[in-house]
Amino acid sequence: MTDAGFVARVNAAADRNRSLVCVGLDPEPERFAPSLQGLPDAIFQFNRRIIDATADYACCYKPQFAHYAALGAEDQLLATIAYIHQQHPGLPVILDSKRGDIGNTAGKYAQEAFVRYGADAVTVNPYMGLDTLEPYLKWTDRGVIILCRTSNPGARDFQDLEIGGKRLYRIVAEQVATRCNSAGNCLLVVGATYPGELAEIRAATGDMTFLVPGIGAQGGDVAAAVRAGRTADGRGLLINSSRGILYASQGEDFADAARAAALTLRDEINQYR
Amino acid sequence: MTDAGFVARVNAAADRNRSLVCVGLDPEPERFAPSLQGLPDAIFQFNRRIIDATADYACCYKPQFAHYAALGAEDQLLATIAYIHQQHPGLPVILDSKRGDIGNTAGKYAQEAFVRYGADAVTVNPYMGLDTLEPYLKWTDRGVIILCRTSNPGARDFQDLEIGGKRLYRIVAEQVATRCNSAGNCLLVVGATYPGELAEIRAATGDMTFLVPGIGAQGGDVAAAVRAGRTADGRGLLINSSRGILYASQGEDFADAARAAALTLRDEINQYR
Repeated sequence: MTDAGFVARVNAAADRNRSLVCVGLDPEPERFAPSLQGLPDAIFQFNRRIIDATADYACCYKPQFAHYAALGAEDQLLATIAYIHQQHPGLPVILDSKRGDIGNTAGKYAQEAFVRYGADAVTVNPYMGLDTLEPYLKWTDRGVIILCRTSNPGARDFQDLEIGGKRLYRIVAEQVATRCNSAGNCLLVVGATYPGELAEIRAATGDMTFLVPGIGAQGGDVAAAVRAGRTADGRGLLINSSRGILYASQGEDFADAARAAALTLRDEINQYR
Repeated sequence: MTDAGFVARVNAAADRNRSLVCVGLDPEPERFAPSLQGLPDAIFQFNRRIIDATADYACCYKPQFAHYAALGAEDQLLATIAYIHQQHPGLPVILDSKRGDIGNTAGKYAQEAFVRYGADAVTVNPYMGLDTLEPYLKWTDRGVIILCRTSNPGARDFQDLEIGGKRLYRIVAEQVATRCNSAGNCLLVVGATYPGELAEIRAATGDMTFLVPGIGAQGGDVAAAVRAGRTADGRGLLINSSRGILYASQGEDFADAARAAALTLRDEINQYR
């Protein structure tokens, strides 16, 4: 881990690879190529090949915790993150575990993400309040990526509720920007599926970086998302693709197919930056 | 796992032991008695003795996930839950992991909680919307315990925001009661530190069961919480105590001290039911 903050590190990777692509590492072993089926470390072997194939077209990686936890594969999650740091040291890793708990416990989750797994950033849920974010924010060289406006249809149930003329997601964004970000280590999750909200949150938060899920399988449009969410310097977005890259092919050519899909997405994004 | 739902199982345990005490299993190895220090399975050995000492004064157990995840002790979490099911089969287990993610991923978290760990119930975060709860709700014989009004000071940052005359936690409670609970497997997390809110949420949700953190170290008052939150039949609450029971003594008498603390809390609660 270098001294520079997470945003500086991910921006350096984005500039070097001319890419805003975050590759989501959501392993689903039933979709792996036949040669990987049944290997005791199939998840790690799959991830390793995906990582090597996409490392010059990505700005970061994002393993999604549930895909490992459901299978008892914490050791392969650990090995995956270590592999990225060792083989591709310029590419930060986001642990997507959407943690949220009171201070005492949040400190344990920060320990999990930043010490046990050595992640460069972690996703967290703001529902319990700003005091629950503090144990992560103390890690000023790591990123704290707070759920704001998510990409799923049900996001509107609570995030869109209006309080004194502002929707809840907007209040979350403003509170994070004004009360949590003194070290510059806060980011927000803002889904690609709602470009109007993306533009509104961009206007409210200056040049804060957004992790953007929802393109591909979830239906978000790349052009609309990039135009709505980019900062003035054409950065400010980490656009996640998981299934669209990982399972571009489920045959033995999966790594080549993933590389091609990452390149296509990178270039599509770059058209609109 | 019996056919009866989680609420029926926890009520049966509460009636049998005349207890609304949920024992929180938040292991902190640095607070363990000297004889446990350094054992490779110290967490499991600690939990096992706490469980055996408190099993006739509790209605359920609640391991808090972060305390295991921070230490890479998933195997000891698994062993703890299996031990409760084998040795004390009438006492349900709540996995307190406060998960929250989109549907595809939430299904993996349901698999983690209910298949991998065999938990009887899991805590979840509603911020992402009701569609993110569906993968858990399908498990009609398990409990889905949704954060509503939490016990920490920062809870007010977002949960107390007022929308058309109602606070967000109230809207969450009403939405869960009317749109999620057709199988009767929803519960809510409502902190003991805010008895006024507890009474309001009780009035809004009929006889739904609440998991109540916040007594003891967090300052919640038992009498006020029980009076505000109980149902007409003197049930409806699972009152959690973690540190107050687990670390009643940090000496070799820790299990006896935990048993005494659980009995004291049980009887104090029962005075106000």
